[in-house]
Amino acid sequence: MLLGRVVGTLVASRKDEGLVGQTFLLVRQLDLAGGETSGHVVAIDSVGAGEGDVVLWAAGSSARQTEATRDRPCDAVVMAIVDSWEIGGEVRYRKTPADSEWAS
Amino acid sequence: MLLGRVVGTLVASRKDEGLVGQTFLLVRQLDLAGGETSGHVVAIDSVGAGEGDVVLWAAGSSARQTEATRDRPCDAVVMAIVDSWEIGGEVRYRKTPADSEWAS
Amino acid sequence: MLLGRVVGTLVASRKDEGLVGQTFLLVRQLDLAGGETSGHVVAIDSVGAGEGDVVLWAAGSSARQTEATRDRPCDAVVMAIVDSWEIGGEVRYRKTPADSEWAS
Amino acid sequence: MLLGRVVGTLVASRKDEGLVGQTFLLVRQLDLAGGETSGHVVAIDSVGAGEGDVVLWAAGSSARQTEATRDRPCDAVVMAIVDSWEIGGEVRYRKTPADSEWAS
Amino acid sequence: MLLGRVVGTLVASRKDEGLVGQTFLLVRQLDLAGGETSGHVVAIDSVGAGEGDVVLWAAGSSARQTEATRDRPCDAVVMAIVDSWEIGGEVRYRKTPADSEWAS
Repeated sequence: MLLGRVVGTLVASRKDEGLVGQTFLLVRQLDLAGGETSGHVVAIDSVGAGEGDVVLWAAGSSARQTEATRDRPCDAVVMAIVDSWEIGGEVRYRKTPADSEWAS
Repeated sequence: MLLGRVVGTLVASRKDEGLVGQTFLLVRQLDLAGGETSGHVVAIDSVGAGEGDVVLWAAGSSARQTEATRDRPCDAVVMAIVDSWEIGGEVRYRKTPADSEWAS
Repeated sequence: MLLGRVVGTLVASRKDEGLVGQTFLLVRQLDLAGGETSGHVVAIDSVGAGEGDVVLWAAGSSARQTEATRDRPCDAVVMAIVDSWEIGGEVRYRKTPADSEWAS
Repeated sequence: MLLGRVVGTLVASRKDEGLVGQTFLLVRQLDLAGGETSGHVVAIDSVGAGEGDVVLWAAGSSARQTEATRDRPCDAVVMAIVDSWEIGGEVRYRKTPADSEWAS
Repeated sequence: MLLGRVVGTLVASRKDEGLVGQTFLLVRQLDLAGGETSGHVVAIDSVGAGEGDVVLWAAGSSARQTEATRDRPCDAVVMAIVDSWEIGGEVRYRKTPADSEWAS
């Protein structure tokens, strides 16, 4: 899996029927320090993530192993919202309320 | 999934029987600002996309999860035509009639 | 799928039994202008391609969706010989008899 | 598979139900000399690896071929702790007690 | 598939049970001229390859299509030892006894 930050959303009205009703998230890849990289992906949301959330996303056939994505033409899924991570015992990222614009 | 723009089409008369009757699209990968990158792919069309359309494409085994591509030797499929996307609440791309040469 | 040109062949007498009788093609990846890139792959031939042919190749599990490659330890297959492609209405590649040394 | 060193752990309380109870490891990719590269991955632990351990990790659908990860939306798994490797008859890495902070 | 040269071996005593009894090879990726590149992979041996051998390796789910690797958490397999390859009718690599330290 890779680290990402949800930076936006995408609308596509004409699409394969397997994608109807899904939410498309624009995800910017993060490095281990929490900084944004140039990498990105469009992923289907399986966990209720919103803009600003730091997330984990899975690619390939593994992206189809959620209820939202099973048997869909989807090769990337957001399947976890990250609370925190640490490296060498030092916290590098911890979620704050401000990280999620859509949090309520 | 990744963002792309359909830039052309390809003809191959001698091919695996699983590919007969399929449309091959040349797709240039886009970045999150909508600009073309150097990346490209040849994808099978599952949604009626045409030259100029901004699309989503899926790769790998997920590319075989549409009616057009199931069980085919196909590792990339165009399965959605993008209407718009936004980042941080700002629209970065919105489809206009001029985006699709084949639109009618 | 990606564009490639068959540039050579490979012989391996000691191999997994699933690969016996297959033809291994050396394929140089092409860009959308038809120029060779530094990328390459060794692919199994499913379509009778020969040296000089411009081809499409598929990777991953999709490479196993031909009669020649089903259930084989093969992650790349040449499954189409390209006749032509065009971008923006302009032909960028069209096959000529000289493209294939093995054509008869 | 690729070589990596476990450099940290990640917590995600809101996640796909298939991921409940799993340990997420931050893994920095290593080169053949044992040096850290810029590549990294978040992998599920299937073997009891801890911070400092040099490990093997597998990606893609192969990452789901362990008891911990079967049918999970997981595309990377740590499935072996490396004792040593050698190149040209010369040992390039050998595990020492100090390599694993969590070893007991 | 990609070209590689077996440059070493790896030992991991603590591992997923699906990997018990397998041989882990360190493989350096080769270019079409036979030169080593910076790319590498750790692959399971399915064909009796040894240090110095020039080999073909397959990745992803295709790496699980040999008797040695079926249903294992393994995403790379060495499944052929290369005898020779040619490009444009010119031999670029031909195996000699000195290529394999373990040949007998």
